[in-house]
Amino acid sequence: MVWCLLSQMTEVQLEMGTLHNFISIHDLVRDDIELILEQAAAMESVAIKRSKELSTKIMACLFFEASTRTRLSFESAMLKLGGSVLGFADVVVSSAGGKGETLADTIRTVERYADVIVMRHPLDGSARVAAEFSSVPIINAGSGSEEHPTQGLLDMYSIKKFKGNIDGLSVSLCGDLKYGRTVHSLGMALSHYDVKIKLAAPPTLRMKPAIVNEMKKAGMEVKEVDSVEEAMKDADVVYMTRIQKERFPDISEYDAVRGKFRISLDEVALMPEDGIILHPLPRVGEIDSEVDATPQAKYFDQVYSGVVTRMAILKMILS
Amino acid sequence: MVWCLLSQMTEVQLEMGTLHNFISIHDLVRDDIELILEQAAAMESVAIKRSKELSTKIMACLFFEASTRTRLSFESAMLKLGGSVLGFADVVVSSAGGKGETLADTIRTVERYADVIVMRHPLDGSARVAAEFSSVPIINAGSGSEEHPTQGLLDMYSIKKFKGNIDGLSVSLCGDLKYGRTVHSLGMALSHYDVKIKLAAPPTLRMKPAIVNEMKKAGMEVKEVDSVEEAMKDADVVYMTRIQKERFPDISEYDAVRGKFRISLDEVALMPEDGIILHPLPRVGEIDSEVDATPQAKYFDQVYSGVVTRMAILKMILS
Amino acid sequence: MVWCLLSQMTEVQLEMGTLHNFISIHDLVRDDIELILEQAAAMESVAIKRSKELSTKIMACLFFEASTRTRLSFESAMLKLGGSVLGFADVVVSSAGGKGETLADTIRTVERYADVIVMRHPLDGSARVAAEFSSVPIINAGSGSEEHPTQGLLDMYSIKKFKGNIDGLSVSLCGDLKYGRTVHSLGMALSHYDVKIKLAAPPTLRMKPAIVNEMKKAGMEVKEVDSVEEAMKDADVVYMTRIQKERFPDISEYDAVRGKFRISLDEVALMPEDGIILHPLPRVGEIDSEVDATPQAKYFDQVYSGVVTRMAILKMILS
Repeated sequence: MVWCLLSQMTEVQLEMGTLHNFISIHDLVRDDIELILEQAAAMESVAIKRSKELSTKIMACLFFEASTRTRLSFESAMLKLGGSVLGFADVVVSSAGGKGETLADTIRTVERYADVIVMRHPLDGSARVAAEFSSVPIINAGSGSEEHPTQGLLDMYSIKKFKGNIDGLSVSLCGDLKYGRTVHSLGMALSHYDVKIKLAAPPTLRMKPAIVNEMKKAGMEVKEVDSVEEAMKDADVVYMTRIQKERFPDISEYDAVRGKFRISLDEVALMPEDGIILHPLPRVGEIDSEVDATPQAKYFDQVYSGVVTRMAILKMILS
Repeated sequence: MVWCLLSQMTEVQLEMGTLHNFISIHDLVRDDIELILEQAAAMESVAIKRSKELSTKIMACLFFEASTRTRLSFESAMLKLGGSVLGFADVVVSSAGGKGETLADTIRTVERYADVIVMRHPLDGSARVAAEFSSVPIINAGSGSEEHPTQGLLDMYSIKKFKGNIDGLSVSLCGDLKYGRTVHSLGMALSHYDVKIKLAAPPTLRMKPAIVNEMKKAGMEVKEVDSVEEAMKDADVVYMTRIQKERFPDISEYDAVRGKFRISLDEVALMPEDGIILHPLPRVGEIDSEVDATPQAKYFDQVYSGVVTRMAILKMILS
Repeated sequence: MVWCLLSQMTEVQLEMGTLHNFISIHDLVRDDIELILEQAAAMESVAIKRSKELSTKIMACLFFEASTRTRLSFESAMLKLGGSVLGFADVVVSSAGGKGETLADTIRTVERYADVIVMRHPLDGSARVAAEFSSVPIINAGSGSEEHPTQGLLDMYSIKKFKGNIDGLSVSLCGDLKYGRTVHSLGMALSHYDVKIKLAAPPTLRMKPAIVNEMKKAGMEVKEVDSVEEAMKDADVVYMTRIQKERFPDISEYDAVRGKFRISLDEVALMPEDGIILHPLPRVGEIDSEVDATPQAKYFDQVYSGVVTRMAILKMILS
């Protein structure tokens, strides 16, 4: 992951109508992010009353990796703007995978069926490869363990919506910081803002030094801590992620980590009353269900941020 | 299954616009059923000319258990009212199942994407649990072996459509009465009417005594018989169901039962000329294909009753 | 496969509004093909600006065999005409297969949900069986190894679009001519025109003598050749197909054939400068990616021909 290199790609700030592909947070400067967050806010009322703006547009969802949440969020966003949807939800039901076709060929086919392609793929860099071959815009809905840029932006939108602003905040990223693509994308987006970062991960799932260095180079104050407890203290935003069993060769090690990286009411009590807890979901026990009723719990509202943020991106690309 | 308890939930009769969730036949009183059947009849002409009434509404289909028929029937109903559809057709292509998310979390996510959730789930009680967590209406499209309330109502609609009225009829329920959720829902619905019931099932697939007692308590005349032949005699309505091989530990027992619980032209000859045969489909041999051409065979017309009944329910919930 | 017999079925030429089922190229006379190709050409502009012509129509896709390309092509065509889509993409997620229902029963159910059924099925003759039971039109999207008539027509449309006319051309069919249903349908369609045919296939994948004889009987000049090189020479159109590994009991035989039936820049150099190369896709190595940039390569444009040809067929059937 080479942050500086890729961010050279966008010297010029986005203007309405100039967004084509949406591949990486690296392609955006701060003004671009601001513009998207503004558009997302404007979508809040459109999402309720619905629109026919994209009624002549077709969105193709190519999910080479299953994902209910992200796929349905994009579909809901497109339908609320009056558009139509086609695609496949899993590589096993698609000849794309089964018959051994290359990604480039699949893209050059599907671009004839749709006006925009939303794509999730297990390999790093796949979305950028797709964009090279496609004449229609590509939106990266998760590629490898590197990037999930629309998630990063909806997380930013959630922070701004619930905290009012982003500059000046103290943000803790917790859980699997090594393989979790959502924290990578959120970290990149936050690097354009004046925020203090705490990183809390099990020893084997720490964020890669290269990324930590990039964050520091971007001017962020970054501190690595050992436990969720420390991450909660003084945090305006706690971003929790799922720790996947498959990452641990030894199940006992997983069990130890799992018990430690978990937010219950006790941990919530450590954070400021106006702090917020986010999670990209699905969760499998990292946050106790008792926490759901606290005012800090914003992870289900965050789901809705996903719909309006994706409406904003689709509109900016397609209209 | 506790009929009396649950039926206490609805003292007050439905009025147009007051239907929120649609979980169980137990939640309905006779006037509610009548209102839905009337609305379904009104949908017959709408189904042909189509409508845009629900053009700003999104229906999510969450099928944790595969079901082509019920899912496509709901989708057709929603599309004919101008609405849109998203969802998943099988738990294997959804992170909902694969990543170990709870049903409550899935519901609290999907309610942000859609205006109504149609849900099928292998566990008894799942739809009611979903309704507790959802801010948007839940429609139960089959839960466990207990309930399939929209099927119950479309069966009632079919009876009324083809027989003119329901009171005074003699209705035979045949096949798997133990695990078949459709006969449970239909039985509950019929208990609000003045009907005579015959129950014909193999010894190991008889209706549970608790349910039979409830039917009697509701004032129904209930008679258990041993064969399809007896079920056909004098029946205004014969409701046949599929007997699943998996229910029998011994395959020879299954073969014996299968041969006995089967409607051929010989059995049709035993029923009144104006009697009707219904089946929730799919069938796998319980009704000979020769029977399809008889005037009594109404099971394919019953499929269409499903579309108009579900249109009525969607419209009552969403408009 | 009995060409002459079936072609007796259509003495009378199609007129607009008279197309009901679309099962086989055998059902069409030359004037029918011409009419569809004209309609497809008219769809080129509709595909760009979109239409609401079929906004009250529902298309059901029943794919008993997975096929991303054909399914998405039909869905795109229907959406561009303003219509709606429902269905299943794979037999494993449908009770149609899983619960042992007959094709006839599935059709008699789905015809209640939709205005047209697009169906792919692994068995020869399945589409015609479906048409016998259906009250709504059936479109064959591939049945067994025999037929794929909409592919045949989109191939014809591609030839006409890129070559201006069809009569007088020299067309080479290459690859798996035994099992490839696309070459069978294209061959039948071409038999109504004045074309010279070269057939180039590995010894075990040659076109069946019965079909070759039929082509000759229809007045075509047919020549069988041994290599792709010979097929390229003087060809106005080279139609390449995928050779599937599963067809070879001995993997070394497959490898030998694979190397020989492959188009690289060397082979392209053998064909006329204004010749075109088509392929039904997906490809798995039969055409080098270097060839994609040559002016002869039209296989991705051919994908788009699929959309407009299917729009034409849907419109002719549904309006």
